[in-house]
Amino acid sequence: MLKFYYNPRSPMARRVWRGLLEKDIPFEGIVMNLNGDQFQPDYLQIHPFHHVPAIDDDGFKMIESIAILEYLETKYPNPTLLPKDTQSLATVRMVQMVSTNELVPKVLPLMLEKQDSPKLIAAKEHVEKVLAFFADNLKDNSYFGGENLSLADIIVGTDISSLPHLGIDFSKYPNLNKWFEQLMQRPSWQTTEMSPEDFEKFRRIVTRMVQQKMKP
Amino acid sequence: MLKFYYNPRSPMARRVWRGLLEKDIPFEGIVMNLNGDQFQPDYLQIHPFHHVPAIDDDGFKMIESIAILEYLETKYPNPTLLPKDTQSLATVRMVQMVSTNELVPKVLPLMLEKQDSPKLIAAKEHVEKVLAFFADNLKDNSYFGGENLSLADIIVGTDISSLPHLGIDFSKYPNLNKWFEQLMQRPSWQTTEMSPEDFEKFRRIVTRMVQQKMKP
Repeated sequence: MLKFYYNPRSPMARRVWRGLLEKDIPFEGIVMNLNGDQFQPDYLQIHPFHHVPAIDDDGFKMIESIAILEYLETKYPNPTLLPKDTQSLATVRMVQMVSTNELVPKVLPLMLEKQDSPKLIAAKEHVEKVLAFFADNLKDNSYFGGENLSLADIIVGTDISSLPHLGIDFSKYPNLNKWFEQLMQRPSWQTTEMSPEDFEKFRRIVTRMVQQKMKP
Repeated sequence: MLKFYYNPRSPMARRVWRGLLEKDIPFEGIVMNLNGDQFQPDYLQIHPFHHVPAIDDDGFKMIESIAILEYLETKYPNPTLLPKDTQSLATVRMVQMVSTNELVPKVLPLMLEKQDSPKLIAAKEHVEKVLAFFADNLKDNSYFGGENLSLADIIVGTDISSLPHLGIDFSKYPNLNKWFEQLMQRPSWQTTEMSPEDFEKFRRIVTRMVQQKMKP
């Protein structure tokens, strides 16, 4: 059975977790305590850069959430999480990379910086641009790839779900707001979403990791 | 005709440039002077986060090098740059994400930090782990996806090509060394590779951007 190394609070791990649930792929979950488990020699054999998630699918080991999700899509194609139309597929892949490269790096300053610090203000401004970009690409569709859930919804929907805990809502973007609320109703989200208490615990763990100069 | 917004020194732009050349896709190249062109309102309409590359393919606009390369692969499938076998395809996607997330962020400290600084030493150690990971995944294959060139070779081969300019060679990894030398012989590399003088100019531009707190 597919082994899934994760921590339920890690956004990168939750991307894959939700992909596994949405595709109904049976897996054995192995929870990694991010206070040291990731540096154990056995895990470093799987993940030399010691992050979560990683998978071991009957001996085939993989790291990197986007690559894992694409692999699961190829190996377990039903239900599909990628649209067939060329431009819709391109939008899915563009949006998930923007989430990874433009949104995720700003979550850390949002979590750690003091109110009114220049870094916090810059991060909030950048996040607003990202939200506008998502809203532009979502248009009036139900999901980023059209009418069906895609990898982009899983990735953006996971990355973005930290923001309400950090005082940023999506009310300026009615289409994005509606998309987010519908997404949060899905069983895969209901099972895995962090409570405000979980989020505060996650924030404390990340703060400690940053203080110890461990990349979260 | 496809418009390609790029700067010949930008590694992210060169990924797409090489993809266009390898697939022999006709394009109109628009060189962006990264000292201001990227902040012009027309360009911000295409790329709100003001990086290169971007494309405009008969009105369909895209950003994010990996997403653009995947789009080109879908729209212009011959010659293919993705293997068909599930595990080979997964390796291609994993390796290109590792290059993006683990190698690229270390190039900046390698370019900017003073000799023997703790950040430089840490960056070099991390790059060694990335090189070992690439060598493990390349095995005895000609390319990361098997016997044919893939997106992973274009992405890793572009990202890694800064390293020899920064005093890091691949001699510890004979398979990676052989792969790199063969890759550099391809016409698409010969046409686009930076000379040592170009690289020094690129280093000066990046240094200035960092000093001005513009994300390169």
